[in-house]
Amino acid sequence: MNTYLESNKERFLNELFELIKIPSISAVKEYDNETRKAAIFLKDQFESLGFNECEICETKGHPIVYAEKIIDEKLPTVLVYGHYDVQPVDPIELWDSDPFKPIVKKTEIHPEGAIFARGACDDKGQMFMHIKAIEVLKNTSGIPCNIKLMIEGEEEIGSDNLETFVKENKEKLKCDIIIVSDTGMIDKNTPSITTGLRGLAYLEVELTGPDRDLHSGHYGGSVSNPLNELAKMIASLHDENNRVTIPNFYDNVIEFSDEEREKDRLIPFDIEEFKNSIDIGDVKGEKGYNTLERRSIRPCLDVNGMWGGYTEEGSKTVIPSKAFAKISMRLVSDQNWKEISDLFSKHMKKITPSGMKIKITEHHGGEPYLTSTKSKAYKAASDAYKDVFGKEPFALKDGGSIPIIAQFEKELGVKTILMGFGLDSDAIHSPNEHFGVSNFYNGIETIINFYKYYSK
Amino acid sequence: MNTYLESNKERFLNELFELIKIPSISAVKEYDNETRKAAIFLKDQFESLGFNECEICETKGHPIVYAEKIIDEKLPTVLVYGHYDVQPVDPIELWDSDPFKPIVKKTEIHPEGAIFARGACDDKGQMFMHIKAIEVLKNTSGIPCNIKLMIEGEEEIGSDNLETFVKENKEKLKCDIIIVSDTGMIDKNTPSITTGLRGLAYLEVELTGPDRDLHSGHYGGSVSNPLNELAKMIASLHDENNRVTIPNFYDNVIEFSDEEREKDRLIPFDIEEFKNSIDIGDVKGEKGYNTLERRSIRPCLDVNGMWGGYTEEGSKTVIPSKAFAKISMRLVSDQNWKEISDLFSKHMKKITPSGMKIKITEHHGGEPYLTSTKSKAYKAASDAYKDVFGKEPFALKDGGSIPIIAQFEKELGVKTILMGFGLDSDAIHSPNEHFGVSNFYNGIETIINFYKYYSK
Repeated sequence: MNTYLESNKERFLNELFELIKIPSISAVKEYDNETRKAAIFLKDQFESLGFNECEICETKGHPIVYAEKIIDEKLPTVLVYGHYDVQPVDPIELWDSDPFKPIVKKTEIHPEGAIFARGACDDKGQMFMHIKAIEVLKNTSGIPCNIKLMIEGEEEIGSDNLETFVKENKEKLKCDIIIVSDTGMIDKNTPSITTGLRGLAYLEVELTGPDRDLHSGHYGGSVSNPLNELAKMIASLHDENNRVTIPNFYDNVIEFSDEEREKDRLIPFDIEEFKNSIDIGDVKGEKGYNTLERRSIRPCLDVNGMWGGYTEEGSKTVIPSKAFAKISMRLVSDQNWKEISDLFSKHMKKITPSGMKIKITEHHGGEPYLTSTKSKAYKAASDAYKDVFGKEPFALKDGGSIPIIAQFEKELGVKTILMGFGLDSDAIHSPNEHFGVSNFYNGIETIINFYKYYSK
Repeated sequence: MNTYLESNKERFLNELFELIKIPSISAVKEYDNETRKAAIFLKDQFESLGFNECEICETKGHPIVYAEKIIDEKLPTVLVYGHYDVQPVDPIELWDSDPFKPIVKKTEIHPEGAIFARGACDDKGQMFMHIKAIEVLKNTSGIPCNIKLMIEGEEEIGSDNLETFVKENKEKLKCDIIIVSDTGMIDKNTPSITTGLRGLAYLEVELTGPDRDLHSGHYGGSVSNPLNELAKMIASLHDENNRVTIPNFYDNVIEFSDEEREKDRLIPFDIEEFKNSIDIGDVKGEKGYNTLERRSIRPCLDVNGMWGGYTEEGSKTVIPSKAFAKISMRLVSDQNWKEISDLFSKHMKKITPSGMKIKITEHHGGEPYLTSTKSKAYKAASDAYKDVFGKEPFALKDGGSIPIIAQFEKELGVKTILMGFGLDSDAIHSPNEHFGVSNFYNGIETIINFYKYYSK
């Protein structure tokens, strides 16, 4: 391990804890002040790196924290992107410790300890590695190229305002490559670089039957029940091969060649371990594809939340007036999220039962993303991982979405290298999210190496 | 109007208000003290009628309030049954006034005013008419027969403890006829007596997929999503003719003859008015039956509540670990609720997707009920209505359930006359429940007349 890193590792961890303690949940208004506190924390960090123009850029929502260090106009420029906002914490009762009081606990996968807290991995932990890697460079060999830092507070709610910010600040954000740590690797000893991301279309459906809740005895059997009908509509969105039934849904899906699919089969993946890791008896998905493919190169549709009627203790004999569902679709190249959202809305309206009313609201979305393994930056990242982990990283397509990555390419004309250090078992977006302490330090080292290789 | 009733009508209404103000929600534990207060209120009322053995009978749940007045062992005995517990009030935001602060407001149907409050009709308002009818008799012509009063506090949660109480007190409850006001009439000027009730089987389903909530990007498309799968299971519970698909579900359903069905078609019912009253564009139900039949002589299955995943403001990209549904079936003679509950559970287990876990909990249930229009008591009730409303009441089968009515017949060998004064538009079990002030007074008069005819 780098000597400076070695002698400052405890402090780095403690500083990360300070950031994690701030409950910057972007989706819930009552946390708005906390979200701002996280932004201010980062600005202070950037200033301590000696960066210029450290600023909190206001948006219509949560602010973007920006800073830059221009060493020499002739040198290449790296833009680091990350986010300081986190997902909500419910179901809170399933957390073993306070989500905003980080603690280090040993786990089977992390015998040296893992940080348990909301945001430990996604993305405070991973984003913070970049800040500390820059600190190490600054205090050892020196920062070898120009660096711009742009950390937003709305990744978990769709990055709408960042999109505007990027559009309006193309000159300021000019760069040669973007690096991001907000993805995972195959396992603790098997590094990977993410070369594909799925897009997202997230909508909310409100189905209305009668204008008020009805007594299920007096009305049961004679009127459409919004919960039964919404269940039917949702059920009809998949066919017997688990393909999405929305017309034209698959029109723009890139089908990979047998050769490419064959290559991806070299990626280590143990189906039994996968099932055991989440305690499921069986996998399920689109016919004709294996589990890795279903979660990377194929689109899908999931209900993320559904509610209606009486949901408290005991029983209530009611036919609800309304039923609700939050439904999202993960998209792959070259599906377009606006188009898919429209197809979804059109289809849902078409299958709404006679005499009922439907309201569909778009939450947010983002385009899918694909990048090549042939670029200079990819090669630099690959070499950086190899130095730390002792083996070349796999190129991996990820099932998650970072909508802004496709947006960066569209607006700035620049590709992104997704250097992730998380693990599937980190439980991001779930109770007991955590991040291996060694992943954190290995991440810092890999990023330091990236700068060295990339600036050569 | 009876002169004593006329000169005491304001006081009767105020006393009812005092009872309504007590939030005796039986389903929710935190209201247990309030529920007891309502029982004490009733005991005081019974004592003021000069009844003997006024007592609060403890049960494992909410108490039963009992009292009796034996005039002469040779006279017939009427048992009055009702309940002092009420349904929960959510969604509370849809109430125009506090559900436990009764107010009288004019409505289109009730230009003379209606009482708006939880329990105004179901069943505090209707049950209280009996107490006040007895007060009128006592202070005018005298009580003409033996009367037993039994008012329970668990009707809205299944009357389990009343069932035990009846089994253990057969001698005490010995009677010739039971009268109950907990049903409705056709409209304000068209009286009816309920001669049929549907039974009920109410269950809760918990479907488990992964052992924790998953990130829908990393896992979406590759694992069974409990919400999607529960939606599919629920959707499959009805076929294209809107018949319930649970094997053997219809085995014991009594099919009525064309002649009987023809007779029921004389019951005034305006389908357009029905649709307008709850603002639905279309009716829906079992093929081959009209709307009145679907809600009276046919069984049905409804989702009363469903929930899972992220249900708060905004979006969360999660595949939930669990999905839940409260599902109830209304039953008709001679379906048996225990048998139907078993058929439901067996079927749901059978259609649970491979690799998922299901847990099914029985909430409560009750048998369906049918009675004849030929008895002395029915005739007395019919004449009583005719005197007050100027026309003979229709014999009507109701879609609701009062499980204890079938239980009374089984345990005490006595039929029940269901003298209801509520209206469909009363919104019982819903926000803004109300009860016409004139329905309240007409109910009292009709009950007074019933005692006179029945004791002749």
